Amino acid sequence: MADLRFFRRLGPFTLGEIAERVGGELPDRDTASLTIQDIATLNTASAGDLSYYSDARYLQDLLETRASAVLTSPHFARHAPPGMCLVVVSNPRLAFAQIGHLLYPAQPLEPGIDPAARVDPSAIVGVGTRIEAGAVVGRRAEIGARCHICFNVIIEQGVVLGDDCSVGANTVISHALIGKRVVIDTGVRIGGQGFGFVPTPKGLLRMLQLGRVVIEDDVDIGANCAIDRGATGDTVIGAGTVLDNLVQIGHNVRLGRRCMISGQAGIAGSTTIGDGVMIGGQVAVSDHVTIGDGASIAFNSGVIRDVAPGTIVGGFPAIEIRQWHRQTVQLARASRRKTDGAT
Amino acid sequence: MADLRFFRRLGPFTLGEIAERVGGELPDRDTASLTIQDIATLNTASAGDLSYYSDARYLQDLLETRASAVLTSPHFARHAPPGMCLVVVSNPRLAFAQIGHLLYPAQPLEPGIDPAARVDPSAIVGVGTRIEAGAVVGRRAEIGARCHICFNVIIEQGVVLGDDCSVGANTVISHALIGKRVVIDTGVRIGGQGFGFVPTPKGLLRMLQLGRVVIEDDVDIGANCAIDRGATGDTVIGAGTVLDNLVQIGHNVRLGRRCMISGQAGIAGSTTIGDGVMIGGQVAVSDHVTIGDGASIAFNSGVIRDVAPGTIVGGFPAIEIRQWHRQTVQLARASRRKTDGAT
Amino acid sequence: MADLRFFRRLGPFTLGEIAERVGGELPDRDTASLTIQDIATLNTASAGDLSYYSDARYLQDLLETRASAVLTSPHFARHAPPGMCLVVVSNPRLAFAQIGHLLYPAQPLEPGIDPAARVDPSAIVGVGTRIEAGAVVGRRAEIGARCHICFNVIIEQGVVLGDDCSVGANTVISHALIGKRVVIDTGVRIGGQGFGFVPTPKGLLRMLQLGRVVIEDDVDIGANCAIDRGATGDTVIGAGTVLDNLVQIGHNVRLGRRCMISGQAGIAGSTTIGDGVMIGGQVAVSDHVTIGDGASIAFNSGVIRDVAPGTIVGGFPAIEIRQWHRQTVQLARASRRKTDGAT
Repeated sequence: MADLRFFRRLGPFTLGEIAERVGGELPDRDTASLTIQDIATLNTASAGDLSYYSDARYLQDLLETRASAVLTSPHFARHAPPGMCLVVVSNPRLAFAQIGHLLYPAQPLEPGIDPAARVDPSAIVGVGTRIEAGAVVGRRAEIGARCHICFNVIIEQGVVLGDDCSVGANTVISHALIGKRVVIDTGVRIGGQGFGFVPTPKGLLRMLQLGRVVIEDDVDIGANCAIDRGATGDTVIGAGTVLDNLVQIGHNVRLGRRCMISGQAGIAGSTTIGDGVMIGGQVAVSDHVTIGDGASIAFNSGVIRDVAPGTIVGGFPAIEIRQWHRQTVQLARASRRKTDGAT
Repeated sequence: MADLRFFRRLGPFTLGEIAERVGGELPDRDTASLTIQDIATLNTASAGDLSYYSDARYLQDLLETRASAVLTSPHFARHAPPGMCLVVVSNPRLAFAQIGHLLYPAQPLEPGIDPAARVDPSAIVGVGTRIEAGAVVGRRAEIGARCHICFNVIIEQGVVLGDDCSVGANTVISHALIGKRVVIDTGVRIGGQGFGFVPTPKGLLRMLQLGRVVIEDDVDIGANCAIDRGATGDTVIGAGTVLDNLVQIGHNVRLGRRCMISGQAGIAGSTTIGDGVMIGGQVAVSDHVTIGDGASIAFNSGVIRDVAPGTIVGGFPAIEIRQWHRQTVQLARASRRKTDGAT
Repeated sequence: MADLRFFRRLGPFTLGEIAERVGGELPDRDTASLTIQDIATLNTASAGDLSYYSDARYLQDLLETRASAVLTSPHFARHAPPGMCLVVVSNPRLAFAQIGHLLYPAQPLEPGIDPAARVDPSAIVGVGTRIEAGAVVGRRAEIGARCHICFNVIIEQGVVLGDDCSVGANTVISHALIGKRVVIDTGVRIGGQGFGFVPTPKGLLRMLQLGRVVIEDDVDIGANCAIDRGATGDTVIGAGTVLDNLVQIGHNVRLGRRCMISGQAGIAGSTTIGDGVMIGGQVAVSDHVTIGDGASIAFNSGVIRDVAPGTIVGGFPAIEIRQWHRQTVQLARASRRKTDGAT
């Protein structure tokens, strides 16, 4: 499936190796020697491909798939037609993702600093790290081991980057302490000045922004995001949190762990967001708001008040989501009725 | 009008040449030898300028203009005061745009690869292409003829770019097949990983994103946009579609032909958009939605359901636009009434 | 407080020097010789720090602070516990900002053009300006004195930049006249083509964009913003106006002076905005709209009609803010009632 101009595939693997890798069971032991070359969705798979099935909406695709084998769960295994080659696992989608990483491992880095990169003599660069042409590493910055610093990345003075990080081309980082295994895409701005001004008779005077950005381990940041440093104290992105593209994080925001922030969402200054929070695309969260652990904000909503842990909110201003749905239904009904009456 | 520090103008042209170029008629044949040096809007034009008139709201500007000649349609020609020099065409605004391109043609490229660019020996670069300093072209990438690859552009391995494309400074392209005459502004990210994760007890595991971005001919992409590659299969931008700045296109989105996507709009993953769709500024379209051919989404709206071909929707959640307007009027009336009662 | 890996602090200063600098009074003259080393908020301050108090919501923080001295106003001074060392000023927050700039002055530039920068021989570069590696300055561009042009900045032909400007890494500027003391963050795009097309049977034809961007003195522009040039005539950003990150400014927008435009806001083409306008985060303002002096647009709102001077609007479509609040309360009440009835 994958275009080999862009991806390097390992393998093939036997179905037995694959089952072992994901802790799966083969209902038919004879299938262990089957050869798997690639992964694909049910409706795009062909011979040699492994696919997965964990949602009854795709039953028709399951029945028609040309995949050589299908990852599925004990619950869904009974949907499979007789004779279909299965690997039974507790979480088929997770297993599918894991096999993806097995077939398409990250390409190994060729360590070294390109002669056209500029690394300040006082900077520290870990073993196995690659720094591409045009990149700049400032005074006393510290780059961990096995990092990939892409073309034209600017890492300003004093920035600390942990091991096994990757920073995409044209990204600029200042005033930041960054953990391990952090993946940052291209065009990102980390550590810029927060948006704080004091009105004066002569105009707006910038409040000095004397804080930092602290990014914990295993964070993933999409393209063209902007994360401002704290005014005093830090802007924090918790471990394992992932940001989609074009996300804006204001100064002194505290984002919890394992949050998912979708594309073009914006979190205004000094807002605190708990662990495991889901924020939909283009959501706007106001400043100085608190969002509890496990809360979800529906796509495109605008949050202006605190959100309790575990609740799902939507709309603008965002309210409990079922209430918002009732409102939109009532409004639609009322506007239809009035028109009928007027006709 | 145009500041010649920034623009290079050809000409002058006679009005006869201009009329011929746009298939227009001169009601007064004696005006064919008139000299036209520049174009301008009615209210900013001076002697030597050509302007256009195709909207009665600008009648006063027509009556007061200092333009030497005015493009207009048979319908609107009668608004012109006696003695005004006219060029009559079926579509004055189009003719005005065409004369603009005649007067201000694209500046010719000086072909060549700057010594400070890095083009992999295995890459193919077409005749007449210019690659500026700091640009990087990866392994087995293919750049067509007469392309302009600006400063610090990163074109990763395997990317294919057709003839007559232009890629603005600091743009990064990976995992993409791009057609002819595609114009990409600065700071764009094409081919990044889509936003797909599987929750695991240890955190979020990225679903490998094994697809591509396919951009057809004559597409125009604004500054700082982000277009993710497909998870499996492709993200597609149809021929002749134009994107404004800061637009987000999620993985596996399929955008039709000749769509107009205004600034800061976002289209979430796996959504399908037909041909000739107009999407207003800061619109958010949810994932897995289908928008039919010729539909329009009003500025700032949030689309969470399918939109039928040819319909115009607005609001959040977006509904048929007249119904949305009725709703907003009813709401305004109700909130005024209640207040009156309370006073 | 501030991490000295990222910030360089002057001082210490005596409280007498500080009071003089901000025109403050020391109720207890004996405190003039007290040593101040840093600034901090009330709840993070320790010995040697100066803090400020101008909002009764932080009274508890005032009572518990470890700050050595506190800037406050005549009105709020009476909240201070006996014996607290005070500096009394008319505007404590402003004084705090001023002392911040005293302690943490902008780092002096080391003038010069990096050998790896590319400055066209016909360009003019002022005295004391620094141009970093990878930056490009085009033909006949003019850079003022004491400017800082960071890594990989592209300044295209003819652009004029006043004295004491700073342009962040990877920013691209074309077709622009820029005043003095303008601060531009990283990844910004100034001067791109506006989003104007004419439909033709063969597709969309771009309307030539022959205008400029004019940025007046003391403007501040956040990361990854995009500001398009005028179609004919100019896009204008008035003196002292500040833009947060990821803001989109369409062609021919006229922004007044001392406006504050928060993150991810977008202003569509040909809209006119007065002086001192506040625009919240992720606000969308439609095209061809006029917003009067001193108006405010609440966070996340969508403006589709003119806004009168001095008014505050919110919602989508944005209406007078108290009316919008009444609407949201009425809607919430109605949707609760109906549900109760149904139960």
